[in-house]
Amino acid sequence: MSGIEALDVLAEQFARLPGIGRKSAQRLAYAVLKYSPEEIAAFTSAMTEAKEKIHRCPICQNLTDREICPVCADQGRDRSVICVVEDARAVMAFERVRSFSGVYHVLHGLISPMSGVTPDALTLRELLARLEDTSIREVIVATGATTEGEATAMYIARLLSPLGVKVTRLAHGIPFGGELEYADEITLSRALEGRRDFE
Amino acid sequence: MSGIEALDVLAEQFARLPGIGRKSAQRLAYAVLKYSPEEIAAFTSAMTEAKEKIHRCPICQNLTDREICPVCADQGRDRSVICVVEDARAVMAFERVRSFSGVYHVLHGLISPMSGVTPDALTLRELLARLEDTSIREVIVATGATTEGEATAMYIARLLSPLGVKVTRLAHGIPFGGELEYADEITLSRALEGRRDFE
Repeated sequence: MSGIEALDVLAEQFARLPGIGRKSAQRLAYAVLKYSPEEIAAFTSAMTEAKEKIHRCPICQNLTDREICPVCADQGRDRSVICVVEDARAVMAFERVRSFSGVYHVLHGLISPMSGVTPDALTLRELLARLEDTSIREVIVATGATTEGEATAMYIARLLSPLGVKVTRLAHGIPFGGELEYADEITLSRALEGRRDFE
Repeated sequence: MSGIEALDVLAEQFARLPGIGRKSAQRLAYAVLKYSPEEIAAFTSAMTEAKEKIHRCPICQNLTDREICPVCADQGRDRSVICVVEDARAVMAFERVRSFSGVYHVLHGLISPMSGVTPDALTLRELLARLEDTSIREVIVATGATTEGEATAMYIARLLSPLGVKVTRLAHGIPFGGELEYADEITLSRALEGRRDFE
């Protein structure tokens, strides 16, 4: 608390962001105060515009500023293989590797009883709707190798098992506890190549 | 780079903030996208209002949302002792200790040839103007015990020596390399009590 209300309000806004503690939030609020009015306007309009322009792709649920995301719009991608990921950052990680030619399905979260995230909060309904298309051969469940990632993968495998579609998961090339977006490209490539059926 | 322009623009804004790397900036941009339009509006108006409402106190140069800051406006403070600090956070640190009854002068930076910060960028002209008031007995130079803090303290001591005012510095109770705002209250109290003349 600085004793200056407008500054405390701004610091609180920064403190709400993930991974930003009280001290850091205060530091960031002071940094913003040093901005020119034009710099402030650039920051606030970047926020407003990102929110206005970006929405979920109606097919894969990934974030996009187009009607349909570039991956879903690309006629060269193999629509018979769907890679199910936690979030847009995981899609970016796979796209950087360039070894996956299928399409994605973005869950926008992982099941987490601890944080109160139930399966309803994920885009599983949309995934089931996509699987009504019988040309889909395989669903790769590519959630991270964390406790929540594994639990979500098991849940999806059980959910899809009555449909008769092949459900695979990433090989354990990813170190345990590792977040997907920090995996290096070789690890991620190998994890993709070595994917195996759910037992 | 996400390939979504509005998202990259927002991530770049976060990456400009001190201590925020590329990965963190991206994480923060995604977090903001999950906000409701009302939450976005609260964040952007906190930024705009902080900038609009907060200015420098015309006396001590500290940040304030009032005409004159609460310390300078407080008739109980001893105006004959000025404590010169780097920034508003250092003022907050001293105010938490409650063992200083004088007033402040905020430099808004430290001299740093490496970062191109010259003495002109600090509020030294304003400090000299204040010292025309001959009732000022002592100037405590309370910059941090970093290389730049020490260099700035030495510069100020030399600058003020012709004026005949007593110039002291904080005692070396502060661990070397320590930033003032992270000092615990006892350390800060002792450093204040043990202050000594510039040799």
